[in-house]
Amino acid sequence: MLKFDFNNMMQSAVGDKGISQKQFDEYLPLAQKAFDAVQSKRGEGWQGWMTPAGSDVVDKIMKVATNVRENFDVFVVLGIGGSALGPIAVFNALCHLYHNELPREKRNAPKFYVIDNADPERMNALFDVIDLRKTAFNVITKSGATSETMSQYLVVYDMLQKAYGKEADKHVFATTSEKKGNLIKLAKQHGFETFFIPEGVGGRFSELSPVGLFPAAVLGIDVKGLLIGSISMDAVCRNPDVYGNPALMSALLQFIAMKNGANISVMMPYADSLKYIADWYCQLWAESLGKEVDRDGKTVNVGQTPVKALGVTDQHSQVQLYTEGPFDKVVTFLQVGEFRSNVVIPQGCEEYPDVNFLCGHDMGELVNTELFATRFALTKKHRMNYTITMECVDAYNIGQLLYLFQMQTAFAGELLNVDAYNQPGVEEGKNATYALFGRSGYEQKKAELDQASKNVSNDKFVIDCD
Amino acid sequence: MLKFDFNNMMQSAVGDKGISQKQFDEYLPLAQKAFDAVQSKRGEGWQGWMTPAGSDVVDKIMKVATNVRENFDVFVVLGIGGSALGPIAVFNALCHLYHNELPREKRNAPKFYVIDNADPERMNALFDVIDLRKTAFNVITKSGATSETMSQYLVVYDMLQKAYGKEADKHVFATTSEKKGNLIKLAKQHGFETFFIPEGVGGRFSELSPVGLFPAAVLGIDVKGLLIGSISMDAVCRNPDVYGNPALMSALLQFIAMKNGANISVMMPYADSLKYIADWYCQLWAESLGKEVDRDGKTVNVGQTPVKALGVTDQHSQVQLYTEGPFDKVVTFLQVGEFRSNVVIPQGCEEYPDVNFLCGHDMGELVNTELFATRFALTKKHRMNYTITMECVDAYNIGQLLYLFQMQTAFAGELLNVDAYNQPGVEEGKNATYALFGRSGYEQKKAELDQASKNVSNDKFVIDCD
Repeated sequence: MLKFDFNNMMQSAVGDKGISQKQFDEYLPLAQKAFDAVQSKRGEGWQGWMTPAGSDVVDKIMKVATNVRENFDVFVVLGIGGSALGPIAVFNALCHLYHNELPREKRNAPKFYVIDNADPERMNALFDVIDLRKTAFNVITKSGATSETMSQYLVVYDMLQKAYGKEADKHVFATTSEKKGNLIKLAKQHGFETFFIPEGVGGRFSELSPVGLFPAAVLGIDVKGLLIGSISMDAVCRNPDVYGNPALMSALLQFIAMKNGANISVMMPYADSLKYIADWYCQLWAESLGKEVDRDGKTVNVGQTPVKALGVTDQHSQVQLYTEGPFDKVVTFLQVGEFRSNVVIPQGCEEYPDVNFLCGHDMGELVNTELFATRFALTKKHRMNYTITMECVDAYNIGQLLYLFQMQTAFAGELLNVDAYNQPGVEEGKNATYALFGRSGYEQKKAELDQASKNVSNDKFVIDCD
Repeated sequence: MLKFDFNNMMQSAVGDKGISQKQFDEYLPLAQKAFDAVQSKRGEGWQGWMTPAGSDVVDKIMKVATNVRENFDVFVVLGIGGSALGPIAVFNALCHLYHNELPREKRNAPKFYVIDNADPERMNALFDVIDLRKTAFNVITKSGATSETMSQYLVVYDMLQKAYGKEADKHVFATTSEKKGNLIKLAKQHGFETFFIPEGVGGRFSELSPVGLFPAAVLGIDVKGLLIGSISMDAVCRNPDVYGNPALMSALLQFIAMKNGANISVMMPYADSLKYIADWYCQLWAESLGKEVDRDGKTVNVGQTPVKALGVTDQHSQVQLYTEGPFDKVVTFLQVGEFRSNVVIPQGCEEYPDVNFLCGHDMGELVNTELFATRFALTKKHRMNYTITMECVDAYNIGQLLYLFQMQTAFAGELLNVDAYNQPGVEEGKNATYALFGRSGYEQKKAELDQASKNVSNDKFVIDCD
């Protein structure tokens, strides 16, 4: 189970750079309103992610995953954004840290790749290391119109078809909308095995849907553990009392911190296995809260910039700034109670006191001691921070953590009075890409782009090292 | 060669959220002063990194690297901070994206690992996939007192010695200070092959010293290309005219942007191969500029928080926030002119116009078109950004880029009037770790820690999900 300590957000711990009990209390009614708003729309609209995957869905996932595990040596996710970040985070948390380099018998699952960029060098690099005949591809896009994913699909399907003809269809597994889009049509046309993303589940809230559960099942991860964890966290987050509801508490504290000028949220796990949980969180927090207008149409330009950091590694990269730089951050520490394996630091430096003090301790202890020490140093320098402790990294706790962050984001959206589920800011770039690629219907955008290129170029501000 | 376009930093491109020519001109004398300060101390003090590695050093690196390449199948860097970030960045830029998974004959170099955390699961995972007998370890720490690295060294050396006795010494390559610290003493005691980090080169400025050059040479990377690139960029950065000096220009623009409220610097390469260049930059920028006091002893709490993003991937994660959130960022785009390989997107979706428009184009074109489109969208929304274009990713251009960022950081330190080369903010955490591990001499710190733990705990702000 997870444990939370929010003390270091408060003035009682960090002095006047923190949140006063008075300010906290002033915002309590707003938190109550946010809580009620989320509760009253459980499972409705874009809150579909609050309804856990049904047993029929899970059963099918397990069945198809068993087939994949038996028949393929490699499993490749083609997806981007939420379709990639969730699978990567859970894989990294719950599989061996060098999964793909283990011999098959120790791996006990196919090799796993997520291709979440349109980079051609990445695509070619993949083909250099996989055997196409033994590879399954899971194409994940709800709309079936994601340019990067559909490009990858076209490349892969073309190769498969040229190599294996009609057998190609058995290599492709589609995860998409049941009702609309290109991918469901292509899936029906070719007879791909298909999983459906519920209509009320957006990309960044989809890890506990088939988007994440199918890859997890293929990897042999305890899918039911993930789900039970998320359900147990859901129960916790139904508590209307902010002092008993960690998602509401963290949303409220972050919201007040934003009001007080903390425009940066650092997510800092102290475990390599949780590194990509921070990446996943960065999408969830940035895309949900970074909005130009609020729900009343007022221009607000809100949002807190998430930053991923890794303890202890980034103590040697970012902590100098966190300790001494501007008072513009909240640091969230993710602590692991017990590592799944440990290493004792042996003797061998008796003559060197600044090394010898380590000997006899173990590395897990070193990591957690450094977390404690860094938190102490930040707190002493009046830097807001809080800690989430996970007893151990397992499917249940990961399910809890992911669901917690989703709830926290939903509450924060309400507090900021923004739509946490849209992303209007990416439309302009998409349309510009359509225009530049000569898609019909985008001629006017093309003209605008041409004009814009002409307008701004000032040679003074162009430097060519040639 | 690199090319820079700074136009989108200016009001002429982004409107009143940008920098006016008038404001720019007002700061020009300060930029001139910063330039003179850096120039006048070339190679002195902590500016030792401005003196390129000599041919004797390079010759030894090449010789020892050849030996490693011939005699070992695996090469492991034990290091943290600058001792890890540089080697990772250059490896990822210039080797195959799945280097370790290639068969040896295609790889043409040992497998490569960088263990840059004290995480015990990572350490054990490494031992699961390497053959100790065929593994070389490069221990990198200038002081020889870095807890994480020295812990790793103790673990590894103990294993090697138990397995191979005196032969263990041939598996260890030390990169450290010539004059002081524990590692040089251990190296002499055991007879490790050793490379020296010049005294005037700090961790985050060390990639073009033996810290980075030796791992690069082992990987078969064109070390001389890296160095020649850096030397050519050095020549460019000796230009006193800001309009011809990209490091001075970017430092000045970022400095003015900070003054105007942009406390976040996003580094966003549009190529998987450059992803870890952004990581390396994040340390350089954060640790150099994030300072509590300036050089006159005045409390300033300055620094810009670097954020790593990856195009096009993070268009589906962060760009919503960048486009619509607060006006608190500068985005640096890193563009690649030509990818080293490409993939054509085949036909196969004639019926689906929102996919079909992609067909016949190639993925490299897609990536660069999306960069263009995203930059257009950000600029239209009045977001400051600038672009560095690298004709292609090769050793020469990477050398240029790394050196550019180092020069930019040096200039920015002068503009902010802070010591870009110290890191006093990490001392408190280190001392707390010593105290918690019971190191003698730290009893008072231990008492302070015990007291601090007692002071702040308020059960109201602790939530236990049990």
